[in-house]
Amino acid sequence: MSERKEFRDLAEPDAAREAIASLDLSPETERVPLVDARGRVLAERLDADRDVPGFDRASMDGYAVKARDTFGADEADPVILDLVGEVHAGVEPTVEVGEGKAVEISTGAVMPLGADAVVMVERTDEHESPRDSERASGEAASRVEIRTSLAPGDHVMLAGADVSAGQRALGPGTRLTAREIGLLSALGVDEVPVRGKPKVGIISTGDELVRPGNPLSDQSGQIYDVNSYTIATAVEEAGGKPILYPHAGDDYDEMERLLLEAEAECDLVLSSGSTSASAVDVIYRVIESQGELLLHGVAVKPGKPMLIGRFPDSAYVGLPGYPVSALTIFRTFVAPAIRNAAGVPEPTTATIEARMAVEERYGEGRMRLMPTGLVEDETGRVLAYPVDKGSGATTSLVEADGVVTVEPDTAYLAEGESVEVRLFSPDVRPPSVFGVGEDDPAFSRLLDTLDSPRYLALGSREGLRRLRNGVPDFAVATGDSDASEGTELASYSREWGLVVPAGNPEEIEGLADLVERDLTFINRGTDSGLRTTLGNAVADLAEERGTTRHELVESISGFEMTVKAHESPARKVAAGFADTGLGLRSTAEKLDLGFVPLGEETVRVLANPARERKDGMAELRAALESELVGVLRDLPGVRP
Amino acid sequence: MSERKEFRDLAEPDAAREAIASLDLSPETERVPLVDARGRVLAERLDADRDVPGFDRASMDGYAVKARDTFGADEADPVILDLVGEVHAGVEPTVEVGEGKAVEISTGAVMPLGADAVVMVERTDEHESPRDSERASGEAASRVEIRTSLAPGDHVMLAGADVSAGQRALGPGTRLTAREIGLLSALGVDEVPVRGKPKVGIISTGDELVRPGNPLSDQSGQIYDVNSYTIATAVEEAGGKPILYPHAGDDYDEMERLLLEAEAECDLVLSSGSTSASAVDVIYRVIESQGELLLHGVAVKPGKPMLIGRFPDSAYVGLPGYPVSALTIFRTFVAPAIRNAAGVPEPTTATIEARMAVEERYGEGRMRLMPTGLVEDETGRVLAYPVDKGSGATTSLVEADGVVTVEPDTAYLAEGESVEVRLFSPDVRPPSVFGVGEDDPAFSRLLDTLDSPRYLALGSREGLRRLRNGVPDFAVATGDSDASEGTELASYSREWGLVVPAGNPEEIEGLADLVERDLTFINRGTDSGLRTTLGNAVADLAEERGTTRHELVESISGFEMTVKAHESPARKVAAGFADTGLGLRSTAEKLDLGFVPLGEETVRVLANPARERKDGMAELRAALESELVGVLRDLPGVRP
Repeated sequence: MSERKEFRDLAEPDAAREAIASLDLSPETERVPLVDARGRVLAERLDADRDVPGFDRASMDGYAVKARDTFGADEADPVILDLVGEVHAGVEPTVEVGEGKAVEISTGAVMPLGADAVVMVERTDEHESPRDSERASGEAASRVEIRTSLAPGDHVMLAGADVSAGQRALGPGTRLTAREIGLLSALGVDEVPVRGKPKVGIISTGDELVRPGNPLSDQSGQIYDVNSYTIATAVEEAGGKPILYPHAGDDYDEMERLLLEAEAECDLVLSSGSTSASAVDVIYRVIESQGELLLHGVAVKPGKPMLIGRFPDSAYVGLPGYPVSALTIFRTFVAPAIRNAAGVPEPTTATIEARMAVEERYGEGRMRLMPTGLVEDETGRVLAYPVDKGSGATTSLVEADGVVTVEPDTAYLAEGESVEVRLFSPDVRPPSVFGVGEDDPAFSRLLDTLDSPRYLALGSREGLRRLRNGVPDFAVATGDSDASEGTELASYSREWGLVVPAGNPEEIEGLADLVERDLTFINRGTDSGLRTTLGNAVADLAEERGTTRHELVESISGFEMTVKAHESPARKVAAGFADTGLGLRSTAEKLDLGFVPLGEETVRVLANPARERKDGMAELRAALESELVGVLRDLPGVRP
Repeated sequence: MSERKEFRDLAEPDAAREAIASLDLSPETERVPLVDARGRVLAERLDADRDVPGFDRASMDGYAVKARDTFGADEADPVILDLVGEVHAGVEPTVEVGEGKAVEISTGAVMPLGADAVVMVERTDEHESPRDSERASGEAASRVEIRTSLAPGDHVMLAGADVSAGQRALGPGTRLTAREIGLLSALGVDEVPVRGKPKVGIISTGDELVRPGNPLSDQSGQIYDVNSYTIATAVEEAGGKPILYPHAGDDYDEMERLLLEAEAECDLVLSSGSTSASAVDVIYRVIESQGELLLHGVAVKPGKPMLIGRFPDSAYVGLPGYPVSALTIFRTFVAPAIRNAAGVPEPTTATIEARMAVEERYGEGRMRLMPTGLVEDETGRVLAYPVDKGSGATTSLVEADGVVTVEPDTAYLAEGESVEVRLFSPDVRPPSVFGVGEDDPAFSRLLDTLDSPRYLALGSREGLRRLRNGVPDFAVATGDSDASEGTELASYSREWGLVVPAGNPEEIEGLADLVERDLTFINRGTDSGLRTTLGNAVADLAEERGTTRHELVESISGFEMTVKAHESPARKVAAGFADTGLGLRSTAEKLDLGFVPLGEETVRVLANPARERKDGMAELRAALESELVGVLRDLPGVRP
């Protein structure tokens, strides 16, 4: 074993926050083209350096005149002026408006010299003048009759009336949205000084990590690097610019080279992803030799081994390895610092008030950052329930919506107690509907027709257990109905049996073969409703044969060899790991395997009675009514 | 005048919504790298195609053993096993665990063959074996003492326990945030099928438009194109991909070429920016000949001349020309259709509930889309007030936070009445503090120290008028105190006088020169407090001379020649348009002009008594206490 750091003197979470706040993550100001400035934050105040409009401008289609020539005119007693020309928008006027004259003008055109008002076209009539022969020399070819009196300035926007040169246009720190970009366009600005995005380097550590998209060796215990992309995305969401570095192993020289490369290029360096204590030790030593370690170990769960330090040119924070833990610590301690440096305040919606859906007890005496799932009740109130109690599962990433901070002196949160949930992303919303239960291919397809559902395929047993606890909106379970289990919304049946290789080379005909012959079998876990159905069938066979269920089970090689998802046994059979496995006809056909039918079982969708009237449940009911038939038609071995 | 379309048969707004909903804006599915997938929407369901982990994995640092070798072990009675090797994360095991054997194992490493449990290192001690000489042949060099009993599976994560191959991972329509990207990383996915972003072509029309960044000719009546960038930004905010086309004039052939180019490349084409009826006519004719016109003219203000049509390959919507009107129509009718096609639902925060800050009457009998500013009261409740009643000013872009839809049959909204405000951008928030009043360089600098203030420099008179109406949080006004004007938070004085060219070539010494000599003068508008101060000084001079104020004013050439902002007269003087102008010493020095002082006036910051306790006002008071001194020190001609 490598030498281990013991975190005996854990820092308080506030000290960690202060240490991170003391780090300088400030990026330099950048200049960006206006078209790319959406969402950026103005680095400095901008004043108008020109008038808008830059000229006296007609704000109506009509005729530019001297207002005093129209004094006293009305419908009954119009004045008639000589029409001496026209001015269009975007064209320099070539005429002047003398006494008794008018010039046709378009909206937006420059007011010609001499004119001080515009009469709108609706209040005028244009007349042909008398024929050339009857016209005095110099007389206009047309005349315009004006049926209203004007005041100077009518329908004219004076130069600078909208924005005047020298006026404050936008203040420093302004977030640029469509409307600010509109104002800057009006001023002719095509490049703006904005706060730089803090550059955040991400180094994942651990010899076992492989970046997604590359081949993976299961034999060598390789896994895909989850934290790099997760944290990179979270950095972007917080207004930073992530830079991914190659993942590093436990080698001191390699790690030192990588950390120094990153620290030279970035405002903040994050390491993450390591499950290995020795990698942490290496980082620790590099920081101690090249920079300054501010804090090592924080009294918070998860996140105890958090490192906070400083290199000559950048800050450093070490995140825990489990993905949900890494995201939790990032969200709580790091994202606020990045947002602050980027000048992008957290959206108010990134934190919401919720009530505990269940009670929860704590006993660690240190701050707990509780990954939390959300579900809405019938009134739209948001309920919170804890997820991922340290399992490290990546699936809990998509079950957790945010984090609740539980203070060290809180030993208990009651059901219904109010908590503050910091969402993982401002875009996160509670699912429209939340269900738990059997992993079933038909129901899984039905889910595809719903808008933002959450469904945890944890098996019938767990579904019913959680439904009794009142957390989910519905459960999906196999087997017969039980009145205590909520309102049945729909049911259908699915054909189950033994999945065998294509062509059924072992010529398996039924359960008896498993009991009597030397065949290897792969089962589902005890939470699965399908497993219960198999157990019942084995019990029936035992009764038929006058023996015990236990006796038969013992004689099936692999009955205790359980795998998680509904396709898992079939995939093991396909891969040659076993002669047969528990499964559904639909799965066997999907994977081009053989199938030995053993019976049909009922799948039921059960509503939580306290949630039947929420919108998402109405959507689910509608889908069960309109979409389920089609799903069952398209899938083999299922029927209404 | 060109032929005009009269909008006699205006469509109802609902018909416009339906026409837009009938357009097909759906983009094609794209595949994007996972690192670029943030915010995108999954086009199809993704199932896991591998187990995570792909192997049975140690979830603790410790020793891999056969659980049955530890049965009965405890602190008092440990078992001792032979240590036969080690396995590290990311490395294929080279040892097996036989009976009575143990293998050192790191978190994340592959379980060696034969082992079914891991004992955590804290419950063990490693011993050196007896010396070589005393050791039997084949005996291990080290032994490990285990002080606890294990069950099979302890501290082992079985292959597929996190995610199993074939499981539904994410549903279609899922918005990808950090956590979803984490799950996809775990599955090794590095490219995802996402909904394409609807391509939205933007064509601005009008011969007078110039794209920002290019030189502008005021003489020719050119203005910067505001709508192209504003709408492009709003398209991006709605999840679309804007494509800007060169601006088009009123020429039929050119417009046809541009529209056809855009319609071939885009899912939707928007035209905008034209103030010219003939450009609209040209577009109308192109659509009629090349596509289908669905709707022309909608009973809504603004937006009456809205065009909705369809080309063979794209949809078309024509927006009004005034920037706030264009954004209002876009936000109300077009953005929802783009969001729908992009699969990006509107954030719930994009619409907020507010109360009318003032009463408002309507009489048009058609739907009114009212651009609305927001301000918070002391309790954090949001109040709405109408802005930009058709002025077309680009400055009202940054005053308007969103749109309130007023139905045609609503003649009156009472103060305090509840309205729904659709924000222009989800990022829009009410300003921290909202003030109206004098355009003053010192106060303008103070604003730079506040976080997201809104200040409308409309002059002292308008500031006091609005303060009496109770809408803003504070006003800034010059002149003497009046007890009815709210709570004075701070005051300072500023030196005013005549701005003259550098060196004062006309040797102007005071007001008397303006009255007696043939000098051209530029004044400020009557809303300006500075103008009032000048008026008072002229009245004093008149009294001194035994004449009337009117008499003196008549003798000042340009007294009625008013410009808008505090720098405007000085800039006109600098440009040679006048001999002198009304201004402040600070302005004259900033622009390197001469200055003839005439006096000092007081600038007062006055709080709305009903808003004194809101957070933003506390921030303003703090800035007045801590920052104002520095601002006044740095600026010439002002003092506390």
